Amino acid sequence: MTDPDVLIELRDRLRCFAADRDWDQFHSPKNLAMALSVEVAELLEHFQWLSEDASRDLPPDRLQKVGEEAADVLVYLIRLADKLGIDLAGAARAKITANAVKYPIEKARGSIRKYTEL
Amino acid sequence: MTDPDVLIELRDRLRCFAADRDWDQFHSPKNLAMALSVEVAELLEHFQWLSEDASRDLPPDRLQKVGEEAADVLVYLIRLADKLGIDLAGAARAKITANAVKYPIEKARGSIRKYTEL
Amino acid sequence: MTDPDVLIELRDRLRCFAADRDWDQFHSPKNLAMALSVEVAELLEHFQWLSEDASRDLPPDRLQKVGEEAADVLVYLIRLADKLGIDLAGAARAKITANAVKYPIEKARGSIRKYTEL
Amino acid sequence: MTDPDVLIELRDRLRCFAADRDWDQFHSPKNLAMALSVEVAELLEHFQWLSEDASRDLPPDRLQKVGEEAADVLVYLIRLADKLGIDLAGAARAKITANAVKYPIEKARGSIRKYTEL
Repeated sequence: MTDPDVLIELRDRLRCFAADRDWDQFHSPKNLAMALSVEVAELLEHFQWLSEDASRDLPPDRLQKVGEEAADVLVYLIRLADKLGIDLAGAARAKITANAVKYPIEKARGSIRKYTEL
Repeated sequence: MTDPDVLIELRDRLRCFAADRDWDQFHSPKNLAMALSVEVAELLEHFQWLSEDASRDLPPDRLQKVGEEAADVLVYLIRLADKLGIDLAGAARAKITANAVKYPIEKARGSIRKYTEL
Repeated sequence: MTDPDVLIELRDRLRCFAADRDWDQFHSPKNLAMALSVEVAELLEHFQWLSEDASRDLPPDRLQKVGEEAADVLVYLIRLADKLGIDLAGAARAKITANAVKYPIEKARGSIRKYTEL
Repeated sequence: MTDPDVLIELRDRLRCFAADRDWDQFHSPKNLAMALSVEVAELLEHFQWLSEDASRDLPPDRLQKVGEEAADVLVYLIRLADKLGIDLAGAARAKITANAVKYPIEKARGSIRKYTEL
């Protein structure tokens, strides 16, 4: 529970949480991916009618709720990765490295284009 | 870049990545929430026609791709939280604690019901 | 195939399409809801980095692709409703009537607030 | 309001609904695509912990709610298509025709593989 790596710490807490409640039977990767998708939409809902500028400057109570939804997303993402044996931190580091190649600084600067169109 | 907390390390890497490419102008919370939603759907796509059992036992090439999509989800989640000043790890810890109250072990064991229906 | 009600016409075409390919075995409501979700995200992807104004004025090739994604959404929605015996047109009419009560014109005019906050 | 084509009838009703409330200012395609995505997730939520078999046999109150969410999805899809000038019925017919070519009956029968892998 006190692993210095926060993603491991949270993974271990969530393992216990599910085991205590006998929930592993429901936590197939398919179901967890659905739950993750539902939580992301609850996060998205807070932004759907806001202008981009307003989304940068949320009132405190709204920001609190968005933080709770973001936590739900992280929780299900960690749980899904755990069930599949995915090393989330390693995968994210590899992705950032790969993206740096796909989006060279000179070509990508100031552009929203996909790497296939740079 | 070498912060012992992996979520901080990744946050800092992603800040540099965006700054180098002048992408902060596109990274409004509204847009990042949409991007997060799109990445989660790319993850979900891998599971849509699989049985729950098959989702537990992905072939290696499929698992590799799922790991890459999971990384994309983490990347956008960290980026969104950063833009809003949300402490992801703290929010996740608070959420797990709150869920432990909402889903008492005796009542929640083996049940998929929402806490409002326990 | 030539029912004057277009939602029935499409429902019947899609029934044949699935039957011809022996796909009903995969088309559980759970799976169709996932597929619907994936298609909506493919639609959403076209808008994720656009300003609201730019989203109102898509170039023709982009608009063509968005139309194809919108068609995919309609196809899976009709298929899901068919599998569950839901009358989509009737449900939509009932929803519009209910929304007119939840959002009275005088109170809702010019406001993005949810009906619970009007 | 009494167009024989139900998608046109609903489109016209929704136009009046938004005009009466001065909501067109919020209904950019970007925002409508987000709202569509949120509604689909509310639909998906009903299925996330169900087995495929259970999803085929919903209790009446659950089915009623799923029907209401499906209506919301149709409403936002119609509204989005209207704002972009997309002919939904035509696009769906074209998509079914294109899919019949991508998924020839002999090759696709009983298979969940994507057309690129047939």
